Amino acid sequence: MVKLQLAMDTLDGDEALRLAECTASFVDILEAGTPLIKSVGITIVRRLKSAHPDKLVLADLKSSDVGAYEANMAFNAGADIVTTQGITTYATIAEVQREADKWKRRAEVDMTGVKDPVARAKEVMEAGVSLVLYHRSIDEELTEGALWDERAVNTVRDMCALGIDVVIAGGIHYDILPLLSGVPIYGIVIGRGITAQPNPAQTAETIARRIHEIWNT
Amino acid sequence: MVKLQLAMDTLDGDEALRLAECTASFVDILEAGTPLIKSVGITIVRRLKSAHPDKLVLADLKSSDVGAYEANMAFNAGADIVTTQGITTYATIAEVQREADKWKRRAEVDMTGVKDPVARAKEVMEAGVSLVLYHRSIDEELTEGALWDERAVNTVRDMCALGIDVVIAGGIHYDILPLLSGVPIYGIVIGRGITAQPNPAQTAETIARRIHEIWNT
Repeated sequence: MVKLQLAMDTLDGDEALRLAECTASFVDILEAGTPLIKSVGITIVRRLKSAHPDKLVLADLKSSDVGAYEANMAFNAGADIVTTQGITTYATIAEVQREADKWKRRAEVDMTGVKDPVARAKEVMEAGVSLVLYHRSIDEELTEGALWDERAVNTVRDMCALGIDVVIAGGIHYDILPLLSGVPIYGIVIGRGITAQPNPAQTAETIARRIHEIWNT
Repeated sequence: MVKLQLAMDTLDGDEALRLAECTASFVDILEAGTPLIKSVGITIVRRLKSAHPDKLVLADLKSSDVGAYEANMAFNAGADIVTTQGITTYATIAEVQREADKWKRRAEVDMTGVKDPVARAKEVMEAGVSLVLYHRSIDEELTEGALWDERAVNTVRDMCALGIDVVIAGGIHYDILPLLSGVPIYGIVIGRGITAQPNPAQTAETIARRIHEIWNT
């Protein structure tokens, strides 16, 4: 079952809770985005988890130092998944994974900016990492154009072939989904593709149905 | 005049304010650390700046995506300096610098994890960056041992020679300062070397006096 993850990058905690509330029936993972956490603090993770205990809550910490310290803070607030970065040191990634193991939760390595994400995925698997995010940076998207070309899709396919769970993110919307059909991804992250739409709940439902048609039937 | 920057990585906003209060006479830059911002939100920058309007306040955002969005949030809260990462994409770094220019404030590029920080400093100077941080990761320090060997000092010297302001961080304490004597750095960041001491105010004063003796006389 391919999961739908809602990324919330608003700076407003109440707005994030409203977004989660109206879309929760259609999403599997609620993501407290990096700017949202920096804006209102880790309390947003606690609020999301207590409003939606049946959903996975992801704290997009993108930790690049003192990884265990930050991961512990987020797990303590109720996060099911925390993130670190593929471009950061192996030491930090390994530390975040160890903290996740301690809590029996998950660490995800965000591959934004990594030159060879397949090779890096193989490396971090040795630290016990079982979940990676193939994520083109939004800033790059703005300067470099289309993200989901054949090369990107093949990279995702190669990462999946390593036997690691792969989540994909970065400018994904309805029309992009069929390009990924047949690739055994773990999940799809959508942010503005849902949150910036006139009717986020309806868009989430439409996308969830499309994911179901393509992967889950 | 070499500046002393106090890095506060506590997760508790009130504790950060107490630390700033007792050490402010001896420090030039008050840093809201990454875990502190993630813990309590950007409001900590506003509280620090309004309690210490005569000090520079640095928001250690370590932005690695949506750089302008996060920088704008921090400048809006009163930050004088925001940070991004040398390991992240050039696009994000350039965006953070542009946002700093718009606010007539500063962006700092944290070189943690960058293989060749001198070359990277040269690159980011083309985006207008005028302030970099040479920073060994604490997680690396724990696994790899001593940070401030001759190679590190020479790297800092080479960065300064580029004509960019260089701040140094990572496990710095009183005994390390003389090793850097003669290197024209812009500032020194100390965190636990002050905050974890029995008397942070006294330690800050001692270190500030030593910096004055070595560089500012």
